[in-house]
Amino acid sequence: MKLGILGTGMVGNTIGTKLVQLGHEVKMGSRTSNNPKAAEWTKANGSGASSGTFSDAAVFGEILFNCTSGMGSIEALRLAGEKNMTGKILVDVANPLDFSMGMPPSLNVCNTDSLGEQIQRAFPKLKVVKSLNTVNYKLMVNPSLVPGDHDIFIAGNDKAAKNKITQILKEWFGWKSVIDLGDITAARGLEMLLPVWVRLMGIFQSPNFNFKIVR
Amino acid sequence: MKLGILGTGMVGNTIGTKLVQLGHEVKMGSRTSNNPKAAEWTKANGSGASSGTFSDAAVFGEILFNCTSGMGSIEALRLAGEKNMTGKILVDVANPLDFSMGMPPSLNVCNTDSLGEQIQRAFPKLKVVKSLNTVNYKLMVNPSLVPGDHDIFIAGNDKAAKNKITQILKEWFGWKSVIDLGDITAARGLEMLLPVWVRLMGIFQSPNFNFKIVR
Repeated sequence: MKLGILGTGMVGNTIGTKLVQLGHEVKMGSRTSNNPKAAEWTKANGSGASSGTFSDAAVFGEILFNCTSGMGSIEALRLAGEKNMTGKILVDVANPLDFSMGMPPSLNVCNTDSLGEQIQRAFPKLKVVKSLNTVNYKLMVNPSLVPGDHDIFIAGNDKAAKNKITQILKEWFGWKSVIDLGDITAARGLEMLLPVWVRLMGIFQSPNFNFKIVR
Repeated sequence: MKLGILGTGMVGNTIGTKLVQLGHEVKMGSRTSNNPKAAEWTKANGSGASSGTFSDAAVFGEILFNCTSGMGSIEALRLAGEKNMTGKILVDVANPLDFSMGMPPSLNVCNTDSLGEQIQRAFPKLKVVKSLNTVNYKLMVNPSLVPGDHDIFIAGNDKAAKNKITQILKEWFGWKSVIDLGDITAARGLEMLLPVWVRLMGIFQSPNFNFKIVR
């Protein structure tokens, strides 16, 4: 499958690398077509990997991953181009973390709205599926880094899109338990898990942990 | 030990009943000294149980439990009286849930502040320990309602107060794992778990679940 990664940070790098390793063609998009981090990633990942602008990646990918920083996601998606994304699934991995007031970060949007919803409203023809934002980037594509059973969540308005992403999470990334929290407004709760997540990382001095819902 | 319960709802009722069953003397406080729910609870729980005003309960209890609804907690604590609470521990079980815009509720305060912090700022001589707000009231005093291992969190500025409440959570209520998230600002994250909690309850059609941090 052809996949588009928006963003050149550790999240985009890690998801993109995993997708190439699985045999897919992946284009990493960024603000410019000559981004050095994208070039480095492309070189490291061989013939399945390529890079370009946000728009190039959006045109290329049948499914897109929003791996930009949350504060810049809407702008990045505007650069990707609404018409290039029409009808496609966007897995929104981002968190609207605002580091402008120092650590710990606050959320730029929360409670009665979320980044997931902002993206869905701004691009109504995109099928936004919020997921993977509640775990460290390494864990996203390698859940066995944390032993035992633990959960990943999804939220979104399009049932078929969520089914497709659930399949990808399970079959490609190795997640055993995917909990569907409902429509995209559930992105509020998923993004609002971050403050506890940040605390726990500080206490454990490691990002290798995850939530499990026990019942 | 003498304990004060602020609030006559299901949370106060359940915690108060458990404490009486453990052999403690418990006074349930409310806005008026003739609250019918408090009277009913007192009658049902025998000689260890009594009721009165918020102020009566605050004077009586060596440790206090804030079981009022979050939107009314600050006002209830003002009625309890700052000088009646000086130097005492308040276990803040409340969530600042705002149902005024319908379901699901939003949070009245979050992200850069929390109810736990508001209470600590309003009553600086009170030792606020945020805990138990992330589980259903029945689970608070009976964690075995959910099988297996799962976690309860605490946050607060006073280390000795947190140690005391950790002991109560473990020895009185039966919690096996208590995770200390740090100072009272961690109440933000704990209260911000509620949106996901509310979603999960809707999906499971049961409040008998809990978070476990797997690592």
